[in-house]
Amino acid sequence: MSKVVKSLREAIALAGLRDGMTVSFHHHLRNGDFVLNFVMDEIAGMGIRDLTVNASALFDVHTPLIGHTESRVVTHLAANYISAGLGRAISRGALEAPVEFRTHGGRPKDIALGRTPIDVAFIAAPAADPMGNCTGRIGKSTCGSLGYAFADAMYAKRVVVITDNIVPYPLQGWSIPESYVDYVVTVDAIGDPKGIVSGTTQVTRDPVGLVMAAQAAKVIQASGLLKEGFSFQTGAGGASLAAARFLKDIMLREGIQGSFASGGITGYLVDMLREGCFRSLMDVQCFDLKAVESLREDPRHQEISAMQYAAPGERGAVVDSLDVVILGATEIDTDFHVNVHTDSNGSIMGGSGGHSDTAAGSKLAMIIAPLFRARMPIVTDRVTCISTPGQDIDVLVTQAGVAVNPRQAELRERLEQAGLPVVDIHELKERAEAITGKPKALPKGDRVAAKVISREGELLDTIYTLPEGR
Amino acid sequence: MSKVVKSLREAIALAGLRDGMTVSFHHHLRNGDFVLNFVMDEIAGMGIRDLTVNASALFDVHTPLIGHTESRVVTHLAANYISAGLGRAISRGALEAPVEFRTHGGRPKDIALGRTPIDVAFIAAPAADPMGNCTGRIGKSTCGSLGYAFADAMYAKRVVVITDNIVPYPLQGWSIPESYVDYVVTVDAIGDPKGIVSGTTQVTRDPVGLVMAAQAAKVIQASGLLKEGFSFQTGAGGASLAAARFLKDIMLREGIQGSFASGGITGYLVDMLREGCFRSLMDVQCFDLKAVESLREDPRHQEISAMQYAAPGERGAVVDSLDVVILGATEIDTDFHVNVHTDSNGSIMGGSGGHSDTAAGSKLAMIIAPLFRARMPIVTDRVTCISTPGQDIDVLVTQAGVAVNPRQAELRERLEQAGLPVVDIHELKERAEAITGKPKALPKGDRVAAKVISREGELLDTIYTLPEGR
Repeated sequence: MSKVVKSLREAIALAGLRDGMTVSFHHHLRNGDFVLNFVMDEIAGMGIRDLTVNASALFDVHTPLIGHTESRVVTHLAANYISAGLGRAISRGALEAPVEFRTHGGRPKDIALGRTPIDVAFIAAPAADPMGNCTGRIGKSTCGSLGYAFADAMYAKRVVVITDNIVPYPLQGWSIPESYVDYVVTVDAIGDPKGIVSGTTQVTRDPVGLVMAAQAAKVIQASGLLKEGFSFQTGAGGASLAAARFLKDIMLREGIQGSFASGGITGYLVDMLREGCFRSLMDVQCFDLKAVESLREDPRHQEISAMQYAAPGERGAVVDSLDVVILGATEIDTDFHVNVHTDSNGSIMGGSGGHSDTAAGSKLAMIIAPLFRARMPIVTDRVTCISTPGQDIDVLVTQAGVAVNPRQAELRERLEQAGLPVVDIHELKERAEAITGKPKALPKGDRVAAKVISREGELLDTIYTLPEGR
Repeated sequence: MSKVVKSLREAIALAGLRDGMTVSFHHHLRNGDFVLNFVMDEIAGMGIRDLTVNASALFDVHTPLIGHTESRVVTHLAANYISAGLGRAISRGALEAPVEFRTHGGRPKDIALGRTPIDVAFIAAPAADPMGNCTGRIGKSTCGSLGYAFADAMYAKRVVVITDNIVPYPLQGWSIPESYVDYVVTVDAIGDPKGIVSGTTQVTRDPVGLVMAAQAAKVIQASGLLKEGFSFQTGAGGASLAAARFLKDIMLREGIQGSFASGGITGYLVDMLREGCFRSLMDVQCFDLKAVESLREDPRHQEISAMQYAAPGERGAVVDSLDVVILGATEIDTDFHVNVHTDSNGSIMGGSGGHSDTAAGSKLAMIIAPLFRARMPIVTDRVTCISTPGQDIDVLVTQAGVAVNPRQAELRERLEQAGLPVVDIHELKERAEAITGKPKALPKGDRVAAKVISREGELLDTIYTLPEGR
């Protein structure tokens, strides 16, 4: 028995894909992914139309999707993150139907609950055997964790694994077992290694970033959470990584061993694991080659599904065991609402990813953001789009001071006692506006470009198209 | 956040267990299991009644269940295997409703399809963290694989993990992730290590067994299947292990590297892995401590769920990649139907387990059985109970010759060409009866004690109660 079929077209036909159905993709190959494009081209060539594409995230490499929306092969899009180039096309109105944004935890939950059923999942796999056991740990297109693909594999009606590295049965160390897989397709290359993972992730050298990072580490220390068993998440942004570096110094100096770091994993967190700062890494996605290698070699470095990582619900997820998460923002307003979906002009350039999941789950959700960027204020009266509700954000660290959510009176007191420059968030907003000027009210287009759906499945906000000519 | 509750009773109450519901258990602690008994005692003490107990298997240690059937706490039982002591009580009519026997592959499939919904699954775990991540690999009550518990964890409405070894979050190397778990209960001991896994598994020294084992190895060699990539399964019975030993000699001598061995894993198969006879072990259950240690230490030794192991359906399972399986029989008839549910008197003393799953999936399903045992013929006109249909059995090896299913003309030819003593199965039956005498028609009781449900979910056979006084 073998599930290997002779072509992608045969797999699509056998899977029974028809007009109006939903196909899904994961984003572990990031901006190096070839799979979404060649699958959609093949589907277009077969004359199938009116599809929903449900991807965990979309990158600029996926811009050919816009051609498929023009020809109405694709009429609906759902993703947890859409990068700036593709996002701009969507903000200019490439689709009639609004894009649906979810969170990394909300997406698998909605799939599991049948709210967003998937007809055919296409799983790009850096290694697979002929029965469909597959992994991202090995192969020329290695990406490490396949965390975001689990829900697709488990719940899609048909599952097609696409690999450029077929290995003899049984594959050693599968992430997704054969039980979920219908067909296996072999291709020359599923992606471009240069776009899949970066070689190394860089700590910022920007002086403002370093100031904020140092302040962030002090806030964590003052919060009372930095003690034995401490758990931590941060993104791969330069200032966040710099904060992790300052944190590491404190942890090593004071002999604190944390329990885990989670989320997207960088080599920087791998170093912290190896140096004893954490007992485990909970990895839903590898950001660089050092993380991939560590996931492959070190049993303390554990792969988690997006469901285990971040799904809302009474059973909880890894995010509910988090002490501290450091997050970014393109805007944050005086109610602590955060925007990570659009730039200050309202053009789509991101998405929640795990932002609101970790903010909701963690004990301390910290935003690091400068007061302004390119003469646009970051701290503002009202964010252009609510990505994460202010009730889940505890503290904002800027170069001009630290603002604490009024809901966290005890935290504010701790930070003040530690001598940190605690300021009211309205004051930060005014300082930002003093430099940039008060931003003009943003003109909006007349159509809804995207809906932002909260991790619990409710409509959180609406993103409008850009006005004509922008 | 922690899912640890203060008592088993609290977990049962929180899980909402009420009259008429279904509770489930796995059997990895085998005859050393404490969990099923103390959970059922607690449930009885809470006054809950009319429950269905769905266990992957039941052992004599679970005989207190009979008391719960008398008091009507338990009115329905389902299991894939029931050992002889408990089986006899059931054959004597302990339950009004027939016990439902399934296979190791059919059970998870029926659970996944909602045919046998589980309200509360109780998962005995040799190690767990406070969020419910759990494993059988470590702890004083280690049992290795938790393969049979996956479906229960994934599909039960509520999942209670019971452990005698709570470890800090996050556990390293979970089998079942926290995403599926509602409550965690800590107890002093989940089982008696002496009953959980045997220290070592013994190859038979019985001369008849050794003759059959040597013949079995020759049959496999002559079948043409014993070549690079060979895959193999055998039980822990003495003659089966002896056959594996002969096979190992051939494989090492001829430099054949197989792909995998699967099923319940013994130290004997671990040795074959280490000596290069296989690239991987696919382990749904560990039979001895050497297997447990290997599963913990060697990444080539892989845990599989019962679903991945043996579930029927178009996606296939490990059993569908099997070349050869060696199986036992308490009876086999001239249509090659096999009984592993009852003894020749009709008393329940086993069950299919993975018998009919592997027979259906493998290319060569071989029964090793003596012509007679304790003056009862094993080869007979008609088995007392059909556990595995004759169409899935390819060859019978006895001490008096080898019988090939007439459906396998090519196999018969290969064996004859190899000089093996191929005989008609009717001739084996006559030789058996020449020694034991023709068995008398078996008197039956007047009630159905059990239904045997095939791996596809159909009624395969019916087991009657023993007549009065037996």
